[in-house]
Amino acid sequence: MNTFGTALKVSIFGQSHSDAIGVTIEGIPPGFEIDTQKILDFCQRRAPGNSSVSTKRKEADIPRFISGIVDGKTCGAPICAIIENGDFRSRDYDKLKTVPRPSHADYPAFVKFEGYNDIRGGGQFSGRLTAPLCIAGGIALQVLSSMGIKIGAHIYEIDGIKDASYHPVDVTEKDFKLQDGFPTLTKESGEKMEKAILSARNNGDSVGGIIECAVVGMDAGYGSPMFEGVENVISQAVFAIPAVKGIEFGAGFDTARKKGSENNDSYVIKDEKVTTLTNNCGGISGGITNGMPIIFRAAFKPTPSVAKTQNSVNLETLENCEVLIEGRHDPCVVPRAVPVVEAAAAIAVCDIIFKNKYI
Amino acid sequence: MNTFGTALKVSIFGQSHSDAIGVTIEGIPPGFEIDTQKILDFCQRRAPGNSSVSTKRKEADIPRFISGIVDGKTCGAPICAIIENGDFRSRDYDKLKTVPRPSHADYPAFVKFEGYNDIRGGGQFSGRLTAPLCIAGGIALQVLSSMGIKIGAHIYEIDGIKDASYHPVDVTEKDFKLQDGFPTLTKESGEKMEKAILSARNNGDSVGGIIECAVVGMDAGYGSPMFEGVENVISQAVFAIPAVKGIEFGAGFDTARKKGSENNDSYVIKDEKVTTLTNNCGGISGGITNGMPIIFRAAFKPTPSVAKTQNSVNLETLENCEVLIEGRHDPCVVPRAVPVVEAAAAIAVCDIIFKNKYI
Amino acid sequence: MNTFGTALKVSIFGQSHSDAIGVTIEGIPPGFEIDTQKILDFCQRRAPGNSSVSTKRKEADIPRFISGIVDGKTCGAPICAIIENGDFRSRDYDKLKTVPRPSHADYPAFVKFEGYNDIRGGGQFSGRLTAPLCIAGGIALQVLSSMGIKIGAHIYEIDGIKDASYHPVDVTEKDFKLQDGFPTLTKESGEKMEKAILSARNNGDSVGGIIECAVVGMDAGYGSPMFEGVENVISQAVFAIPAVKGIEFGAGFDTARKKGSENNDSYVIKDEKVTTLTNNCGGISGGITNGMPIIFRAAFKPTPSVAKTQNSVNLETLENCEVLIEGRHDPCVVPRAVPVVEAAAAIAVCDIIFKNKYI
Amino acid sequence: MNTFGTALKVSIFGQSHSDAIGVTIEGIPPGFEIDTQKILDFCQRRAPGNSSVSTKRKEADIPRFISGIVDGKTCGAPICAIIENGDFRSRDYDKLKTVPRPSHADYPAFVKFEGYNDIRGGGQFSGRLTAPLCIAGGIALQVLSSMGIKIGAHIYEIDGIKDASYHPVDVTEKDFKLQDGFPTLTKESGEKMEKAILSARNNGDSVGGIIECAVVGMDAGYGSPMFEGVENVISQAVFAIPAVKGIEFGAGFDTARKKGSENNDSYVIKDEKVTTLTNNCGGISGGITNGMPIIFRAAFKPTPSVAKTQNSVNLETLENCEVLIEGRHDPCVVPRAVPVVEAAAAIAVCDIIFKNKYI
Repeated sequence: MNTFGTALKVSIFGQSHSDAIGVTIEGIPPGFEIDTQKILDFCQRRAPGNSSVSTKRKEADIPRFISGIVDGKTCGAPICAIIENGDFRSRDYDKLKTVPRPSHADYPAFVKFEGYNDIRGGGQFSGRLTAPLCIAGGIALQVLSSMGIKIGAHIYEIDGIKDASYHPVDVTEKDFKLQDGFPTLTKESGEKMEKAILSARNNGDSVGGIIECAVVGMDAGYGSPMFEGVENVISQAVFAIPAVKGIEFGAGFDTARKKGSENNDSYVIKDEKVTTLTNNCGGISGGITNGMPIIFRAAFKPTPSVAKTQNSVNLETLENCEVLIEGRHDPCVVPRAVPVVEAAAAIAVCDIIFKNKYI
Repeated sequence: MNTFGTALKVSIFGQSHSDAIGVTIEGIPPGFEIDTQKILDFCQRRAPGNSSVSTKRKEADIPRFISGIVDGKTCGAPICAIIENGDFRSRDYDKLKTVPRPSHADYPAFVKFEGYNDIRGGGQFSGRLTAPLCIAGGIALQVLSSMGIKIGAHIYEIDGIKDASYHPVDVTEKDFKLQDGFPTLTKESGEKMEKAILSARNNGDSVGGIIECAVVGMDAGYGSPMFEGVENVISQAVFAIPAVKGIEFGAGFDTARKKGSENNDSYVIKDEKVTTLTNNCGGISGGITNGMPIIFRAAFKPTPSVAKTQNSVNLETLENCEVLIEGRHDPCVVPRAVPVVEAAAAIAVCDIIFKNKYI
Repeated sequence: MNTFGTALKVSIFGQSHSDAIGVTIEGIPPGFEIDTQKILDFCQRRAPGNSSVSTKRKEADIPRFISGIVDGKTCGAPICAIIENGDFRSRDYDKLKTVPRPSHADYPAFVKFEGYNDIRGGGQFSGRLTAPLCIAGGIALQVLSSMGIKIGAHIYEIDGIKDASYHPVDVTEKDFKLQDGFPTLTKESGEKMEKAILSARNNGDSVGGIIECAVVGMDAGYGSPMFEGVENVISQAVFAIPAVKGIEFGAGFDTARKKGSENNDSYVIKDEKVTTLTNNCGGISGGITNGMPIIFRAAFKPTPSVAKTQNSVNLETLENCEVLIEGRHDPCVVPRAVPVVEAAAAIAVCDIIFKNKYI
Repeated sequence: MNTFGTALKVSIFGQSHSDAIGVTIEGIPPGFEIDTQKILDFCQRRAPGNSSVSTKRKEADIPRFISGIVDGKTCGAPICAIIENGDFRSRDYDKLKTVPRPSHADYPAFVKFEGYNDIRGGGQFSGRLTAPLCIAGGIALQVLSSMGIKIGAHIYEIDGIKDASYHPVDVTEKDFKLQDGFPTLTKESGEKMEKAILSARNNGDSVGGIIECAVVGMDAGYGSPMFEGVENVISQAVFAIPAVKGIEFGAGFDTARKKGSENNDSYVIKDEKVTTLTNNCGGISGGITNGMPIIFRAAFKPTPSVAKTQNSVNLETLENCEVLIEGRHDPCVVPRAVPVVEAAAAIAVCDIIFKNKYI
């Protein structure tokens, strides 16, 4: 189902071309003053048209808060925000039902929903559904910020080009400042990535990438062993973002290639606090925070919508055929996905913190 | 909490040195005949002492089914199985409370549980708790097998040494046959890995690795968009295994480095069925199965228990100090973790399948 | 939280005077054709102004379905419907925050939400929130009807005046026909009840009552032992209706005064089907349906808004004081609550049926 | 499923004649010292053989805590306690599968579990499963007691004979003292009830009754509107007790017969605290506690096992037949059910309190 969390509950609804899309959010403490402009600014970071490399489609994405807020403050009732979908050009979507686009959800959704799935614009699988996720995440970020917890993300890699990394032990809020127009830590890597994206677009192709995210300011002792650990909860939120195919915490897959003596994070007292010399565990041991920055990376596959003729099948005749995807599409979703990863992390961390401490 | 799933519910309880450890399992159809010997054989694969490279500690691990089964068949009531813990040598565990072992859960657990956590043998964070997970997984595997769904795993990599991979499109049950004594696909890679592990042990060190798992025989149409997708559910189960720090599906992190035209899995009719030419998505698009094998890899960090003096802190005096971990420990948990990954995958897949189809 | 169910999920949001109120519904099978007019007709039954005894406040209550439906059919995505709230006369609600109305939620909500609760029109505690419950229930009723399951309710008692009862064993859909203008089975009892309500109103007072509900056409074998039994699930839904203070199934509290030999429902074969001679258990044994009609009754307290001066306290000064509630209010919510009870029963039964059969 | 709660999770497993029955409990704060003797004493109150009117079957019911407790204190890991079932006389239970006992769960369970349900001694529907509920409740009661919250219950009515009632406004812990040997408030009513029970037994019959329960010391502000209100959560727990067919809070069904001006609970300051003059709402308004005692009553049907020949059907031949239930049975479960109601109330209240305050 489209619901996340137990102590912070986030439910997302809507399809790309339904009347509206939206989100309900339960569990935000009453009396919390929501900075609406900050929510808009945050959502704007995922809106298209920010940079030379994103699609030119226009999405206004102005959320209307229809419940849960009185005089700018939460009243304890569920918050609901909706974004009206504008009118859409009519197109022959029926063809897509018969001939699924490779690596899109068309075919699995067709089977699951017995052909009744909303195919228009990708339906409920559309990246557009990350807009309500950003509304929820934007609110969660403000609540966390009021508790001294900050979350930031940046592009870690696109098409093999790497950005600088967060310093695993010393990352702080000031490291969350991104380059203007392109969400990398360094200007050079961003420029190279932009070129790679434009080059892919010019070839009618697309590229994937990796986003790195850090949560700083979270005390030790949050999370749970086994099934409700911090890694489990963050993963559940992050895999909700379309195109994510992998996640790793701390040194992640690299820890698999290390010796224990290299990988272990030794404890050391710093400013009368327990810290670690390294942070290969990404701030989490046994599913529980250890007080160091939580660091994770999520892998995004390249946009499946490419402007090349592809092999597909006709679901009615069960014959092989070809498909050419029309329309304009992002040659790379990664730049716009950076705030979405922050949003996913924020709702996960809020849920973990809002739970009773002992469960 | 220590509970997984909604349609198949698995709850694990116990600590390394408590009277017993165990598991309750709800949702298995009534009248299912459980092959107890197969469960024992399956659990035996994770038991220590199987190979030259695992710890010599003896764990009998004979589960006693105390409810839910009548005359060898499930009766619809919750299944509960327990494994009695034998007597343990008394040891000075209090020291570990004061001086946490690097990259163990000692310190986060100390903070979360306010010093009351069971430190003996790792308490509830002990790898021993994967034994009840294997009991649940062993039952789930039998149920899935009766539906034509098979799950297998093998060591994909240890200390940089790679095994062969599953063929992403053509993996079948016959590929799940592992080498005698060491769970790799090829004998050569297994022998090299064993040497690497022994070498690490001789140096008082440990190594990590990667396990690859495949689920074959699952039809298209299972799973959900967003928060309850197949990736989300499998991740939640797999991150419950101690030491896992990353997971990727299909081509995973490699998809981030591919062009869309390379990464897209084209559809093709084969034997009058919809299949894909490649399987970079690992059998999952939009959170829903597409009928191809589900393939994922989990990264394991090296055992944090190494026989070297390490830096740590005294939690009472908040002073730096050293710690030396005593006792015998697996220099690499990966070989014993192979059935545990299969078990985690099995309970996740069962939960997905047992859910109402439309949610 | 404002969410009900596991296999059918219903989430209600909004406050009496927020921008809008609404509901999200997950779990309805895809391809189900929703008869919107029937939903409107159903909601109309709870709308004010239907009879001489209900408040004259006007509520248009036309739901707008903003997601989950394509060309009149469910598409598998969450359904969201909202009802815009019109403009409300500004009133001095702050006074109510300081001086809580007796037997309203004002005071408990003030404490829980630390004074930030939306007091306008009762906020999230308003009976108005039963409108979205009726939207969800209206859809559930249509789905159940397509499976041969019908639900009906009637006023069983108001101010000590009793209506006829459903025949516990033989109630069928045709018994669900209600009197025009007042939802009783017999005209006479309805007229007496209307008089009692008008008499209470003329005295500036209010009355409570009991609603009886039956579910017919449900096969044996649904539900679960213990915590997820049919009684448990229906109770959870029915106690969500404001003013409900009690629920009983079958002979209910009367069974407590019976001998076992009187109360036991003997089995008998009828038309080659297993039935019972009596139905004191209300169609449920051990939490599981036995194929007989499910029958329950819910007790409603009288509307707490009476036109008399009442004793209350000033929460700021902690001094005793008086309060007089202004505005027009239903002298009895019971007539309008009849479809709400049907709606609550419908979502409960849908949730039970949609669950995997074995859990 | 057999699991209750979100912040306190209680899972019950076992059947009447399985190897053992038991319970897992999650969410108890770490470091809580459990008084095991008090648990035993509490469980003993539901054990058979306490009075002249209960069955003579012997149940030792000594729980063994196999996890979650170290040196008498909770360690934060799930608590698991089991009670071994002794050996049972072999009996011809197969007959009961074919000819279900009236008003037992035999037939619905047969349908749900497709004939595989454990019929021996009632299987998972046995009243014996309330023993693990009492273990969980016994722990919850201790935790609540440490927070100043006390729970008591007594027989309110048996066979039409009424005990004294709790004073709705002034009930305190001292009112929880019960008569020796029979759990009523007054000796006279208890003696009459015992006579009525013995009389029923001598006639081969049984009687039902009503239990009243009070929770005192709980502050205002706990609970939630709508689906997770205090009434909803307590109901879910109480209907898990076999034989319960109704529940009412405060004046309950009587409120339905009152005028609003009679039923409203006026506020009044007492000892500088907000209280109410009456307590018709049973301490709950809008699903949230108001600081007054929570009071509810649960109706129990008479034991269905009577020593008279009853009409039933043969499920194989679909023919009418007779059934005579053998063995000794409680002619009234109500006396033994008093601590079970306290236990159910305790886990419900714990769950409500342990939840994050704002959800």
